[in-house]
Amino acid sequence: MTFFTHFSFSKEILTIFAPDKLNPFSKMASILPKRSEDYSAWYNELIKHADMAEHSPVRGCMVIKPYGYSIWEKMQRTLDDMFKETGHVNAYFPLFIPKSFFSREASHVDGFAKECAVVTHYRLKNAEDGSGVIVDPEAKLEEELIVRPTSETVIWHTYKNWIKSYRDLPLLINQWANVVRWEMRTRLFLRTTEFLWQEGHTAHATAQEAVEETRKMLEVYAEFAENTMALPVLKGVKSANERFAGAVDTYCIEALMQDGKALQAGTSHFLGQNFAKAFDVTFADKDNKLEYVWGTSWGVSTRLMGALIMAHSDDDGLVLPPYLAPIQIVIVPIFRSDEELKTISEKVAELTKEFKKLGLSVKFDNRDTHRPGFKFAEWELKGVPVRLAIGMRDLQNNQIEIARRDTKEKFTKSLDELVAYIPQLLADIHANIYKKALDFRTANTTKVDNFDEFVSVLDSKGGFILAHWDGTSETEEKIKELTKATIRCIPLNNEQEDGKCILSGKPSTQRVVFARAY
Amino acid sequence: MTFFTHFSFSKEILTIFAPDKLNPFSKMASILPKRSEDYSAWYNELIKHADMAEHSPVRGCMVIKPYGYSIWEKMQRTLDDMFKETGHVNAYFPLFIPKSFFSREASHVDGFAKECAVVTHYRLKNAEDGSGVIVDPEAKLEEELIVRPTSETVIWHTYKNWIKSYRDLPLLINQWANVVRWEMRTRLFLRTTEFLWQEGHTAHATAQEAVEETRKMLEVYAEFAENTMALPVLKGVKSANERFAGAVDTYCIEALMQDGKALQAGTSHFLGQNFAKAFDVTFADKDNKLEYVWGTSWGVSTRLMGALIMAHSDDDGLVLPPYLAPIQIVIVPIFRSDEELKTISEKVAELTKEFKKLGLSVKFDNRDTHRPGFKFAEWELKGVPVRLAIGMRDLQNNQIEIARRDTKEKFTKSLDELVAYIPQLLADIHANIYKKALDFRTANTTKVDNFDEFVSVLDSKGGFILAHWDGTSETEEKIKELTKATIRCIPLNNEQEDGKCILSGKPSTQRVVFARAY
Repeated sequence: MTFFTHFSFSKEILTIFAPDKLNPFSKMASILPKRSEDYSAWYNELIKHADMAEHSPVRGCMVIKPYGYSIWEKMQRTLDDMFKETGHVNAYFPLFIPKSFFSREASHVDGFAKECAVVTHYRLKNAEDGSGVIVDPEAKLEEELIVRPTSETVIWHTYKNWIKSYRDLPLLINQWANVVRWEMRTRLFLRTTEFLWQEGHTAHATAQEAVEETRKMLEVYAEFAENTMALPVLKGVKSANERFAGAVDTYCIEALMQDGKALQAGTSHFLGQNFAKAFDVTFADKDNKLEYVWGTSWGVSTRLMGALIMAHSDDDGLVLPPYLAPIQIVIVPIFRSDEELKTISEKVAELTKEFKKLGLSVKFDNRDTHRPGFKFAEWELKGVPVRLAIGMRDLQNNQIEIARRDTKEKFTKSLDELVAYIPQLLADIHANIYKKALDFRTANTTKVDNFDEFVSVLDSKGGFILAHWDGTSETEEKIKELTKATIRCIPLNNEQEDGKCILSGKPSTQRVVFARAY
Repeated sequence: MTFFTHFSFSKEILTIFAPDKLNPFSKMASILPKRSEDYSAWYNELIKHADMAEHSPVRGCMVIKPYGYSIWEKMQRTLDDMFKETGHVNAYFPLFIPKSFFSREASHVDGFAKECAVVTHYRLKNAEDGSGVIVDPEAKLEEELIVRPTSETVIWHTYKNWIKSYRDLPLLINQWANVVRWEMRTRLFLRTTEFLWQEGHTAHATAQEAVEETRKMLEVYAEFAENTMALPVLKGVKSANERFAGAVDTYCIEALMQDGKALQAGTSHFLGQNFAKAFDVTFADKDNKLEYVWGTSWGVSTRLMGALIMAHSDDDGLVLPPYLAPIQIVIVPIFRSDEELKTISEKVAELTKEFKKLGLSVKFDNRDTHRPGFKFAEWELKGVPVRLAIGMRDLQNNQIEIARRDTKEKFTKSLDELVAYIPQLLADIHANIYKKALDFRTANTTKVDNFDEFVSVLDSKGGFILAHWDGTSETEEKIKELTKATIRCIPLNNEQEDGKCILSGKPSTQRVVFARAY
């Protein structure tokens, strides 16, 4: 297969950097910039060299390469199972939305809905001068179509016909789809013009049930982040400024990246009756009285790929959480002849069979065109959690060498104990990278009590800053203007304490979480 | 859940048509038009009443409803596993393609690529008169973007950077995506402006390997159609007229619907070096000589949903092949009191646990708002392969009533034998509906030896017509013009026999398959 088609070592470089087959770590220099020197370049180069994604010919759109996509597929599968476990079903709504729909929900219009791809024509034709194809001016649409930036409008338009009575509620629907937002400054995975996501859209008979759904899905996202991505997240609610256009409340999970910037990893919106009113969606309650329907929407996107990379990876490449790694175990044979490779391969085939029985994904890297040191560096770059190396002497000693991607530890294990040990090792790796990220967050969460301190912490170490705020949009905007920091969230079950707003000095009852963010 | 939200029986109709709880088939009239009277209306009403899909506010686009989408998800999962089994990986390429790309491959331009959605602007703004949003005339793109009708162009543009050497080949990539073709006459699932599909795009070092890939994927499609959809298909190659724009050869699977019309269910294209030449994709072979890459592409779409419906269903509703049914077994309790329902539910819980262990999907329809006769008709309409009914007397006799959706047979089975019996029953149902479709095809495949006979068979019974053809595009076009019949395919391993073209009388060496088609 072609996952590593564009890996950019040449054989010459290999020979220089990896003369010692068995101990490549000490000799192999990373091909990536260091995080401490240029975090942004490190991120871009890592995505390139780990074969995750690349820019497409269309500005701001990306090609998700097979290795990157296989991680996204694992995310999708896990989330989809969780959605179904909580009673949701999938459906599919159209890519195009009539322009007029965007005028219906007033605050939705004022929100992000402006930077959209607009379809105005439906036909090409051959240019008369034979120079190629042109847009046929005769084929102009009466009403322009918008490529969905999100689907609340078209879905609530559809729900109007689906919901008549309380018996039709709740509707618990999700869709996996591509969406387009015409971003001016794009970065692979973090902010692209087209991206992949899921969007849940539910309809309920009562406000309480809709709020419960909103919070339930926030919990699903948090669980996914922590148990699958090994990513600790803060759960909270957005301030009015940061709220989704059309929502009554926006809940979110916020994660901290290694450069001290925050990343919003998922949102869950309580829509109140806003979209029901905009699209006239009512239901007859048990007393046959017409009421507007209550709604929620919630989504996560390929942005999670960016979070995954930035939270765990190091200067040598990706560090993948074991439950999302397309390859969980790579086995590298150490051999000097075809005969030796054959002998080792037989043992590896046995092991592979056992691993597969446990549902683990294994890759046997038996290429004879590359040295072990090259392979070690390559799989390190690609973040494979566990690497096994086995040579003739190991076979004789009934043992194997294990290397952990997260800690870089190497140790040997008896072949008799290996298969039973690996699931435990993967769980340990998950727990370790989670803890590392959590410790980092703890170390980079700072309480400040005045504006000078706020600015000083922001500029020196960044991270989450807990500070008092007077609750007004004006203050929030002013702080953003002065520092580029925003309120990431007001944490759920936030501790109440009296204090003074760091900017206005007005009284406040709780600290909120500020950060500079992606 | 809300799969049956829009089922259109009212309680009054229920009381009239289903007074007898245990024998509803004899009393319950179908709500669908009869196939024999109006096949087209039957198809549309079936999709509506079985909650499969509906038209969206945008002309020609569809909303795939949860019940319909869950069938598509099962198709996707099975196909995806088959693709991976044959060495393919998934990736994602962008939705938008620069207009200029369509001028690159000459025959691709002349083909279907004209009826496309064209993006010309990237921003909306508020109208100055406050009437809503308008397209911002300032935000005009320098080069228009086409919403992908298929992705050969953008993928081969990308492959150019991925392929340098024979070591980078083969590339075996698939993507699951939405595509848009601006169709003038649309029908749910069969022909919609936006549809969902998968498109495989592979690159090879030799023509032979690419042809083998093309035929391998044709086999995968045929296997899927027969073993999963219970749909017999003819495998063949298209005539030049029906070939994909840009392909050297188009292979296809063709199925016969119950109204005697053919439906192309999947295609696999050998692209030769056409796209490699158009996008300048070369590789260095083992002797370091530059060669153009050989390509294939292959796809199936939500059109398969239309084939599924039209091949098997009857006047009472859907008939789902067991391996694609979202619900394989529905259990309907027959009870007169809460106490009885409770007793029955306990037994059903035991059974459900056993079924789930076998990987079967079960629905216990314990609603107390609807009578059994209503439920029977509803699940019949939705095509659930096996219905179990159980009441107090059954419990006392340690038995259960089984009804097959395909044959409408009803019989009782001992509860002790039930769980072991169901997988066999599902396999029988699959085999039976496959055989029924195959028998239908056999009965509706006719050899004709002259044009009068050809027209007469077409107009009386339709179906596949095996006739001699002189091999020219002119004759093929003339026949299409006169009869609306097209050459569906030249079957693989076609029998060679001397004959005369039914239109031109010129000599021919084999019969080809004609039909009117969707």
